[in-house]
Amino acid sequence: MKADYILWEGAGRGPNGAPQVVLGVKGLLYVQISAKTPKDLHSMYAPIARNPAWELLDFLRELRGPDGRVNIPGFYDDILVPPSVEGLTASKLGIDLRLMKEALGYEVQDDFLVKLVRDPTCNLDGIQSGYTGEGSKTVIPSHAFVKLDFRLVPRQQPKVVLAALREMVKKRNLEMMVLGEEEPFRTCEDSEIAKALIDSARETFFMEPLVLPNSPGTGPMASVARTLGIGQIADGVGPDNPGSNIHSFNEFIYKRDYRLCKEWMVNLLKRLGV
Amino acid sequence: MKADYILWEGAGRGPNGAPQVVLGVKGLLYVQISAKTPKDLHSMYAPIARNPAWELLDFLRELRGPDGRVNIPGFYDDILVPPSVEGLTASKLGIDLRLMKEALGYEVQDDFLVKLVRDPTCNLDGIQSGYTGEGSKTVIPSHAFVKLDFRLVPRQQPKVVLAALREMVKKRNLEMMVLGEEEPFRTCEDSEIAKALIDSARETFFMEPLVLPNSPGTGPMASVARTLGIGQIADGVGPDNPGSNIHSFNEFIYKRDYRLCKEWMVNLLKRLGV
Repeated sequence: MKADYILWEGAGRGPNGAPQVVLGVKGLLYVQISAKTPKDLHSMYAPIARNPAWELLDFLRELRGPDGRVNIPGFYDDILVPPSVEGLTASKLGIDLRLMKEALGYEVQDDFLVKLVRDPTCNLDGIQSGYTGEGSKTVIPSHAFVKLDFRLVPRQQPKVVLAALREMVKKRNLEMMVLGEEEPFRTCEDSEIAKALIDSARETFFMEPLVLPNSPGTGPMASVARTLGIGQIADGVGPDNPGSNIHSFNEFIYKRDYRLCKEWMVNLLKRLGV
Repeated sequence: MKADYILWEGAGRGPNGAPQVVLGVKGLLYVQISAKTPKDLHSMYAPIARNPAWELLDFLRELRGPDGRVNIPGFYDDILVPPSVEGLTASKLGIDLRLMKEALGYEVQDDFLVKLVRDPTCNLDGIQSGYTGEGSKTVIPSHAFVKLDFRLVPRQQPKVVLAALREMVKKRNLEMMVLGEEEPFRTCEDSEIAKALIDSARETFFMEPLVLPNSPGTGPMASVARTLGIGQIADGVGPDNPGSNIHSFNEFIYKRDYRLCKEWMVNLLKRLGV
């Protein structure tokens, strides 16, 4: 398989209705970390007993500050933030913040898109320990585990983050299982594919596309780029809108968007000289 | 119903084989605390989203230090520790620490019994949030809850602790459900029932009983004392041993202990002039 560039699936219309051009993806590291003791105990032993749930929580307290900052050594060292990110404010882009409030269920700030594109995160996907049924049970659980995903921005390497995390986990005698690893990826804004996508979007929609240096989400762009040796991968020409119920029940697109996106693709192929 | 004193069920043989005389119980406060947002979200929103699990963990971080200290205002103010507690060390009592290691699954210190009797605790009984099945799911959960029990020592009042806890919970916009409340209770070591139990134990077993100012566990002694107006309640004459599998599968007592405890009760009743 050989190609000059790849047009990736996934981008749609931005919160302001503008067509999206997305030049990369965040990486991901997904782990499950657990703490164990030999057996459940009556909670009257609490003054002297080890409680794996507290031990896990103490680790999480060390891992992530209340401000969301991730305390893995070197976590923020290799990050590359393109200057264009700072321009992604709602006020500059004409984005109505009420649309995001609807999507999330509560209010966000003017710089929400800057943060989505720029910031790596440590997210708690799930946690479980002890008795979680109705009513009360006075027990010191023997097992606690947490599922965490780290979204990584370009130049952060999951393997590097994982190695440092492994050290922290080892120091506290916790167990760790790795459930997912994806490298971030970003195509240069001056690449042929980016320029062609942006220009053909303007031509088709008569408006400025929303260009994101990378998606807030993750995909295997880096694996494809490495395997095929293709450095120019961009994501655009998608007809979904912010209310599309993407990946959910009753997902839909507008016919108008579908027709426009077909036209956008034709215009893109012409510009690329295909 | 009228009585001068109550002989309570529950005490058995101590870790050193000595008959136990227990003069009170710890109190208990059991609560479930939860954090909620309108809906689950894709974890790509982590840079801007509220995560109820992190919000709950931030609260737990505030509530309890890594040293186990409970940071509820006034929590340690009303505690009464009788001087006899300090004498409850394993070395002084001839208790083999290996027996406790077997019961818990890991080693404890010489002062384990001091801590069990003296220290109030905040124990995490259960916690649940988000995806906890096999493998990975990148989700920001919309609901997180924790079950906590506080063992309270004599003079700590569950209602007072609860009021202060309620303030902390309110400040963080969390929800709280109260699932259990019991006051602690303690009978004076110089009371008639205590003296009669101790003396009859010596007479029956030809050894010094293990006298605990209060149990590490909880029972409704205070409610009974208040309802019936009886201030002298003590717990003794029980035949179970540290390996009895109490409250568990294959619970047992030794015939020898059963016979000795019958004798102890006869000797007790004689002393009380019944």
